[in-house]
Amino acid sequence: MEIPDFSDVVKAHDLIGNSVHRTPVMTCGSIDQMTGAQLFFKCENFQKVGAFKFRGACNAVFSLTVEEAERGVATHSSGNHAAALALAARMRGIPAFIVMPENAPSIKKQAVAGYGGKITFCKPTLQAREQTLARVAAFAGATEIHPYDNFRVIAGQGTAVKELIEETGELDIVMTPVGGGGLLSGSALSAKALLPRCRVIAAEPAGADDAYRSFRAHTLLPSENPRTIADGLLTSLGKRNFRIILRDVDDIVTVTEENIIKAMRMIWERMKIIIEPSSAVPLAAVLEHPSLFEGTRTGIVLSGGNLDLSRLPFKDF
Amino acid sequence: MEIPDFSDVVKAHDLIGNSVHRTPVMTCGSIDQMTGAQLFFKCENFQKVGAFKFRGACNAVFSLTVEEAERGVATHSSGNHAAALALAARMRGIPAFIVMPENAPSIKKQAVAGYGGKITFCKPTLQAREQTLARVAAFAGATEIHPYDNFRVIAGQGTAVKELIEETGELDIVMTPVGGGGLLSGSALSAKALLPRCRVIAAEPAGADDAYRSFRAHTLLPSENPRTIADGLLTSLGKRNFRIILRDVDDIVTVTEENIIKAMRMIWERMKIIIEPSSAVPLAAVLEHPSLFEGTRTGIVLSGGNLDLSRLPFKDF
Repeated sequence: MEIPDFSDVVKAHDLIGNSVHRTPVMTCGSIDQMTGAQLFFKCENFQKVGAFKFRGACNAVFSLTVEEAERGVATHSSGNHAAALALAARMRGIPAFIVMPENAPSIKKQAVAGYGGKITFCKPTLQAREQTLARVAAFAGATEIHPYDNFRVIAGQGTAVKELIEETGELDIVMTPVGGGGLLSGSALSAKALLPRCRVIAAEPAGADDAYRSFRAHTLLPSENPRTIADGLLTSLGKRNFRIILRDVDDIVTVTEENIIKAMRMIWERMKIIIEPSSAVPLAAVLEHPSLFEGTRTGIVLSGGNLDLSRLPFKDF
Repeated sequence: MEIPDFSDVVKAHDLIGNSVHRTPVMTCGSIDQMTGAQLFFKCENFQKVGAFKFRGACNAVFSLTVEEAERGVATHSSGNHAAALALAARMRGIPAFIVMPENAPSIKKQAVAGYGGKITFCKPTLQAREQTLARVAAFAGATEIHPYDNFRVIAGQGTAVKELIEETGELDIVMTPVGGGGLLSGSALSAKALLPRCRVIAAEPAGADDAYRSFRAHTLLPSENPRTIADGLLTSLGKRNFRIILRDVDDIVTVTEENIIKAMRMIWERMKIIIEPSSAVPLAAVLEHPSLFEGTRTGIVLSGGNLDLSRLPFKDF
C-alpha cells in the first residue's frame, strides 16, 4: 500500500493548478475577538462543485494514462465526490460512471447529472453500492476512484493547505474536519513539509468519532451507527489516510452537535459565507476547546458549501 | 440644496479608504451561463457592519469639524444605517445617538448597542421617531446624519462603484437596488464620471415602486404602503438623491417578489455567499428583463448581508 508524500502534493498542484480555483483565505475580526485566536479560513466552499473534493478528483482524473482515461472513471458516492469526479472527467473529455443509491436527494442527482456524470442507481446499501460499482466499472473497463483512500486523491486534497500556507506564512496550527481522512491526510503532508513546527489537529463530531477512537487505539476502528448533522463526515477512515494520520497528525478532538450548529451560524452571520455543517466542525473545536487555540495563528479549511437551504438547522432565538 | 459630484466621491474615498473594507468583486460562471451576461458582483455584504451603509456613515462622521464631532451624531433608524453610524462614531471616539422604534427586532438593537450606539426607544411611528430624534439631537447638540438624503452620505456610498470600476475596467451597465436612493445616486456619480458610456440601471421591487413611478413622472412621489421582502428598500426616495437620479440614471426597472427570492437563492447556492433580500433585486431584474442584459458586462452592487437566519424565505422544492 503506497502512500503519497509532499512531493506528490507539489506534482498534483502543478497538474491541477490551472483547473481548480485558488480559493481566498478569509479572516474575521469579530470571530478572532470571540475566540482569542487568529484564524485563517481557506474557503473551499468557493471551490468548483462547492467543495475541496474537486482537487483530489481532478488530480486522479488528470493523472490517468491516455489508455486508462479513454475507458473512463467510476465511483460510488452520493456526495461531493460524485459531482467532483463528474466535472473532472468532463474537463478531460472522458466518461464518469457514478453509482448512487436510488434514495439519494434529488438535488445531488441533479448536480451529478448536470456535470455530465453517467448515473447507475442501486439499492441504498453498502453492499449494493460496491457490487453495482464493480459491475459498472468492469463493463466499461473504467478506473475506480475511491473518494479518499486513494493515492492521487490524497495528494490532490493536500493542495488546499499548500495554498493556505503559501498565503499565510507561519501558522501554529492547521485544522481540518475528518471523515474518511482524505482532506486531513493530504493537509498533514503539506503542513508538516512546509511548517515543521506546525501542529495538525483534526476535528470530528462526537457522534461519528471513529477517527478519534482509532487515533487513540492506534488501530483502525470502524464507524458504528454514526449520527451527526455533519453529513460529510459519516464515513470511516481509509487505510492510506490512517497511516498518514498516525504519523503526521498531532491530535484529534471531538465536538458536540450543538457547537457544530453554533459555529456554522457564527460563520454564516459574521463572515456572510455559506458553509455546510462539516465545514463548521473545526471552528466548533475552537469554541469547545478554547485553551488549545488561544493566542495561536490557526489555519482552518472550510471544506465545502453544499447543503439544502430549505432544511437549515437554525432555530429562533 | 447642494448635491455632491464625483470629486466629492474621490475626497470621500481618500478620507475613508483606510477605514472601510475594499470588498472583493466576485464572478460566477454558472450564473453568467444562465443569464447570458457577464456579471461582476461588488460584495458589500462583506463590508463592515455587513452593508455598504458603513461607507456613507463613515464619510459623514469623519467629515465633521472637531467642534461638531465632540457633540456627536444622531439618527433614527432600525436598520443598517444605525449600526453603521454607531461604528463610525466609535472609530472617531464620539457618541452616536440612535433613535429606534421600541418594536425593532432585538437582533438589530443588539447590533447597535454592540457598536456602542446610545439608543433611545420611541413609539413605532414616523412622527414619534422624528420628534424623539429632534429632542435627542438638540439636547446633545449632535449633528443629525440622514441615512440617504445627505451630501456626505451620498459621496461615501459612491466609493463602492468607484472601487468596482477600478477593478473591472469597462462596463456596459452598473446596477444597484433603490430604496432611499443613497447607494443609487452615489453609484451613478461614479459610473458616469469614470465610464461616460456606461448605463446606470436601478432595480426596485414592484411592491415598493416609488422610485420607478417618480422617475417616470419626473416628480417625487412618496411610497404608499410598500410591501416587499426586500426590507431595506421600503423607504421613499430622498430629495438630493432624486435630483442626481433624474440626471444620471438611465432606467429603473421593477421586479416581482418571486424573482427576488429566486435571485437570492441563486446567489446563495451558486456563489456560497449570504446576501439580504434587497441585494438580490438587481439579479432579479436580470432574470426578469433578460434582453436588457444579454451580452453585456454588468456590474452589480450586493448591498448587504444582514438578515435573520431563522426566518429564511426558502421553501422545499
